[in-house]
Amino acid sequence: MREYSIIKTLHKPPTKFINPLHLLMKIAIAQLNPTIGDIPGNAQKILDAAQKAVADGARLLLTPELSLCGYPPRDLLLNPSFVEAMNISLGELACYLPSNLAVLVGTATENLQAKITGGKPLFNSMALLENGKVQQIFHKRLLPTYDVFDERRYFEPGLQANYFTLDNLDIGVTICEDLWNDEEFWGKRTYATNPIADLAIIGVDLIVNLSASPYSVSKQRFREEILKHSAVRFQQPMIYANQVGGNDDLIFDGNSFAMNRQGEIMCRANAFDADLVVLEFDEEQRDFLLSSIVAASETEDEEIWQALVLGVRDYARKCRFSKVVLGLSGGIDSALVAAIALSALGKENVFAVLMPSPYSSDHSVIDALALGENLGIKTQILPIGELMQGFDNTLVELFAGTEFGLAEENIQSRIRGNLLMAIANKFGYLLLSTGNKSEMAVGYCTLYGDMNGGLAVIADVPKTRVYSLCRWLNSHSLSSTLHSRIPENILNKAPSAELKPGQVDQDSLPPYDELDDILQRLIHNHQSAAQIVAAGHDAKVVDRVIQMVARAEFKRRQAPPGLKITDRAFGTGWRMPIASNWVTVKNAYQTDPSASLKRWDGQDADVKIK
Amino acid sequence: MREYSIIKTLHKPPTKFINPLHLLMKIAIAQLNPTIGDIPGNAQKILDAAQKAVADGARLLLTPELSLCGYPPRDLLLNPSFVEAMNISLGELACYLPSNLAVLVGTATENLQAKITGGKPLFNSMALLENGKVQQIFHKRLLPTYDVFDERRYFEPGLQANYFTLDNLDIGVTICEDLWNDEEFWGKRTYATNPIADLAIIGVDLIVNLSASPYSVSKQRFREEILKHSAVRFQQPMIYANQVGGNDDLIFDGNSFAMNRQGEIMCRANAFDADLVVLEFDEEQRDFLLSSIVAASETEDEEIWQALVLGVRDYARKCRFSKVVLGLSGGIDSALVAAIALSALGKENVFAVLMPSPYSSDHSVIDALALGENLGIKTQILPIGELMQGFDNTLVELFAGTEFGLAEENIQSRIRGNLLMAIANKFGYLLLSTGNKSEMAVGYCTLYGDMNGGLAVIADVPKTRVYSLCRWLNSHSLSSTLHSRIPENILNKAPSAELKPGQVDQDSLPPYDELDDILQRLIHNHQSAAQIVAAGHDAKVVDRVIQMVARAEFKRRQAPPGLKITDRAFGTGWRMPIASNWVTVKNAYQTDPSASLKRWDGQDADVKIK
Repeated sequence: MREYSIIKTLHKPPTKFINPLHLLMKIAIAQLNPTIGDIPGNAQKILDAAQKAVADGARLLLTPELSLCGYPPRDLLLNPSFVEAMNISLGELACYLPSNLAVLVGTATENLQAKITGGKPLFNSMALLENGKVQQIFHKRLLPTYDVFDERRYFEPGLQANYFTLDNLDIGVTICEDLWNDEEFWGKRTYATNPIADLAIIGVDLIVNLSASPYSVSKQRFREEILKHSAVRFQQPMIYANQVGGNDDLIFDGNSFAMNRQGEIMCRANAFDADLVVLEFDEEQRDFLLSSIVAASETEDEEIWQALVLGVRDYARKCRFSKVVLGLSGGIDSALVAAIALSALGKENVFAVLMPSPYSSDHSVIDALALGENLGIKTQILPIGELMQGFDNTLVELFAGTEFGLAEENIQSRIRGNLLMAIANKFGYLLLSTGNKSEMAVGYCTLYGDMNGGLAVIADVPKTRVYSLCRWLNSHSLSSTLHSRIPENILNKAPSAELKPGQVDQDSLPPYDELDDILQRLIHNHQSAAQIVAAGHDAKVVDRVIQMVARAEFKRRQAPPGLKITDRAFGTGWRMPIASNWVTVKNAYQTDPSASLKRWDGQDADVKIK
Repeated sequence: MREYSIIKTLHKPPTKFINPLHLLMKIAIAQLNPTIGDIPGNAQKILDAAQKAVADGARLLLTPELSLCGYPPRDLLLNPSFVEAMNISLGELACYLPSNLAVLVGTATENLQAKITGGKPLFNSMALLENGKVQQIFHKRLLPTYDVFDERRYFEPGLQANYFTLDNLDIGVTICEDLWNDEEFWGKRTYATNPIADLAIIGVDLIVNLSASPYSVSKQRFREEILKHSAVRFQQPMIYANQVGGNDDLIFDGNSFAMNRQGEIMCRANAFDADLVVLEFDEEQRDFLLSSIVAASETEDEEIWQALVLGVRDYARKCRFSKVVLGLSGGIDSALVAAIALSALGKENVFAVLMPSPYSSDHSVIDALALGENLGIKTQILPIGELMQGFDNTLVELFAGTEFGLAEENIQSRIRGNLLMAIANKFGYLLLSTGNKSEMAVGYCTLYGDMNGGLAVIADVPKTRVYSLCRWLNSHSLSSTLHSRIPENILNKAPSAELKPGQVDQDSLPPYDELDDILQRLIHNHQSAAQIVAAGHDAKVVDRVIQMVARAEFKRRQAPPGLKITDRAFGTGWRMPIASNWVTVKNAYQTDPSASLKRWDGQDADVKIK
C-alpha cells in the first residue's frame, strides 16, 4: 500500500457546516470528461468541480459512474495495483474535498467476501465522501453484459437497495443500468430486480444516478422517456449524472438531467461537452425547482456531427496527438472526415493528402483541392503512378499470365496506406481512416490500405447517413472554425473507389439506400434472410449481402477503433467468429434441402472421425 | 419455424433396445472438431460418431459442449434464427440417431422465462437424445466470464443439479466450467455453488462433463489434477469429453479422459486430433475399467508445436484456404512459422517469399533459402530496393530535411506487407504473419507491415519459447511431412529486423530472456512495476517495458487473430483501452510525488470544467 501514498500530513477533521434552513438543497452535477486510468487527473477534476460547486452553494455533488478511473476501464481492472491506486486516491480525495460538501464518486472496490462465497473480486461502486472521510460505499446492482459492456467480467452485483441520509433528505442512489429495468416500460424484465422499485418501497425523497452511458442516435430522447416512466410510476424525482467525452470507440454524450415527479425535465446539462450544473431541490415539495435546460439537438444529423467531432477531438487528445493526417480521394467519405477533423482540431491541425493514380478521374483531384480550399486545410499531392509501376515490375514474373483484378486494385490502396502512415510516423500525426459503415459491413474496403488509421471516424456511419450529414453541414453555418462547405460536385457524383478505369461502387454493390436498409435489418434487428426478403428486398441481393458481411469479418477484426454512433457497431461490442460457416448453413437450409443431414447409416460422410 | 424444416417423413418410434446384462455399460466419447455455425455439418459428425459408437456396443455417447454449433459461437447466438436452426437440427438429430443409443448433445436453448423473471434469453445446454426424441435438457450452471469467455453475455445459469437415469445408472451431467469450482483445490471459491458437490449429495453413479476447454501450456496436467481432487473428494468416477480443433484464436486440444474414484486415469483420447473412444463402466464396482490411454506429450515444446500445427491447419481449412504464403526474412520467427505451416498443410501448400532490401545482410537471403530448401517449400525472391527508392522519390519533398528514422523503416516493412497481400489476393492464399509475443507486447513490429496476415501463428509465443521450439524441432525426427530442420545459423545469429544498417533487436530492447520474464510478470501475473523490480529487474528497464506495452495497444488492436497457447494472450481475451493514461499515473505515483493531487483550492488546475 505504501508505495502509492501521497498524503503528507495527517488529516484534520473539518468543522461540519450546518445549513440553518433546510428547505432547499442545492445539488450539483459534475459532468466530467475523464481520461481512462488517469486516477490523479480524474481526481483533480472532481476536486475542481467540488470547488465550483461549493462556490455555488451546493450541498451535494454528483459525478459520473467510475469517475475516478473513467469508464470503461476494461482490463485495467485486472491489475490489483490499479484498484489499490483508486482506493488510495479515494481516501486522499476525501481529505482534500471541502468539508461542507457531500460528494458521490464512482470507483471500483474490492469484494472482500469473494474468495469465501464465490463471485467476482470487485464491485462497481459509488463512494459517499463527506467530512474528510469515505462515509459509505454503495454497489451497482444491475451489471450490463451485452454489446460493448462486459461488467460481469469484473464485477459482482450489489444485493441491496442503496440510499443515504443527507440533512433532512433520504437520497436513493443507483448506478447507470440500475435505472434501466422498468418492466412496465420495456414490456419485459432484463434483470430480476428493479432498484427503483426497491427505493420507492423504502420511501426515499429522491433518486440519483451516476452514469456512463455511451451515445447512440436518439438515445437521449430514449433515456428521458425511460426515466419519465419511472419518475411518474414511482413518484420519484430523479437526477441522472452522465459522463462526457470520447474513450476509444465510445462517445459519452453527457446530457445529464433532472426530472421531477411528473416526468418533466427540470434541468439539462450540455450535450457533448463537460459541464457543471447546480439545481435546487425543494424539501417541502419533495421535488426540483426549474433550473437551466440546455436545448436538445435539433436533428439527428446535428447530434451525430457533434458526437463525431467530440470523438475525434478526445481520441487525439487522450492519445497525445495534436495533428491528424488523412487521404482525400475527392469522394464524400474523406470529405466528411476532413470536415469533422477540422471542427475537432482546427484547420491548422489537419493535413490532407491527395494520391491520384492513372485511374483517378480529373475531377477527383479538382474536387479534393476545392474541398481543401473550402476548409482552409493544408493539402499535398503525391501521385502514385510510379509506385504502382514499381509493384508491377516487382511482381511481373510472379503474376505473368494473370488478369488485372482485385490484387492490383488493392496494391493501389495499400500504396496510399503506406504513404499516409509514413507521413503519420514521420511527423507524429494521427492517421484518420475514412471508411463508412456500409463499406465496412460488406468488405468494400482494403485491409492495410484505406482501412489504415488510428481511428476510423465514420466506421459506424452508413453511406446514406454520410450523405445526409454532408447535406446538413452544407445547409448550416457552423462556428467560426468551419466557414465553408463540401463542394456540391462531391455530393452529386456517383461514388467510386477509382481503382480501375470507369469503376463505380454500384458495379459491385446494390444501391446504397437498398444496401443500408438490408444492413440495418441484418445487423441491428438480427433479421433472417427470409425476414429481410419478406420486407421487400430481392432474395438474391439479400443472400449476396449476407455472404459479403460474413466474409468481411476478417477485415473488421483488424480495423482501427471506429466511433460508435448506433446501437450495434463493428467495434468492441461486435464479437463474431471468423472461421465459421453459419451463412452457408442458413442458405443451404433455405435453398438446398440436399445439404441437410445424411442418415446415420450414410457411408459418404466427407469428414471421418478417427 | 417452417423455413428450416428438413424432416421429410414422420418419425417412427423405434423399438427400445434392452441390454439383458447391465453389469457393464459401454460409454463412448466423441471428441469432435466442429466448424462454428455449421449446424448440419456438426450434426452429421455427431451422427457419424453415433454410428461407430453403436458398432462398438456403446449405450451412451458423449459429445463436447455446444457440439451442435461449435464453441465459441459468440455473437451468432444473438440471431434468433441461429438458435431456431439449432432447435430444429436437434429434433432431426434425435430422429436419425440409432435408437439403442443415448446421446448427449451440446446446444443453446431458449430461456422461456427470461422476459418475465429477467435474465439472459438463452441457456448453454445439453440435450439427452434417445428413442427418437429429445428426452431431457440440462443447463450449464457456472458460466465463465473472464479471459476469452463471455458466457454471461448470452446465457443465464442453470439453477439445478443435473442428472438422468440410464438403465441402472444415475448419471450426473455437467458442462465444462461446472467442474472448475472445487474450493478445496483452489483455496477459494469462484462461484457460490459446486455442481459436483450437489451431485455427490444426490448420490449419482458417475459424472460426465461436456467441455470446450481451450488449450494453454500444461493445461491438461492441470485439468487432470483438478478432476483428480474432485473424483477422490466426492468419490465420483468422471468422464471429461472435450472439443478438439482450432477456432480462430482458440485451439481446443481434445485430451478427453475418464478418471476412476481413486483419481486414476482410465482412458485418454488423442491430443490435438478428433477421436472416438469407448470405455466400460462396471456397474457393480461403480467405476471404470481400464481402457486405452493415449500418452501425454513429452515436453511443453512438443505440446505447443502440436497446438500451433492444428491451429494453422484448422484456421486455413475452416476459412476455405488450401495454401498459405509468408515472408521469409532469414530470421527465426518466420523460420518457425514456415515449419509449422509445412507440418499443417504439406510442403506443396506453403509459398515463402524473400524480400531483401539494401539493408538486408547477405546471410539473411542465404539462410532463408537454406531453410526453404531444408523444408522443400517453394520460395521466391522479390527485392524491394526499387520500391523503397520509389517511396523516397514520392516523399522527397515532404520529408526534406528530416533524418532517416522509424518512418523509413516502416515503409520497408509495409512494402513487404503489400507484396505479400498482393500475392495472397492474386492466388487466393492465406497470408500468415510471423511476429512473436515479445514483439507484439512491446510493439516491436510494423502495423500494416510485418503484422499483415489472416492469422498470426506465433503471436502468443514469447521469443525465448520460439528458440526452444526450434531447438526441439531440430532435435526431433517428425513425421514424413517434415524431414528437415531449421539451419543452425538462423538459431545462432543475433535477432534483427534489418530495417537499417547493422541493426539488431537488442539496440532497442532488453535481452529477450530479461524481457520475457518482465512480460510474464506484467501480463500473466498482473504484477506492478514495484513487484517486478523487487523480483530483481532494473527499475528503468521495467518502466520502459511497461510504457512500451501500453503504447503498443493500438497496434495489437489491429492485429490478426493470434493462436492462443498461454493463459493470457493478446486476443479476444485481452480488452485494454487505447486512449488511457494508467502507465503514466503509476510511474508518477512512484517517482514524482509532485504529480499528485492539487489541493481543492489550487488555482492552477490545467483542465477546467466549463
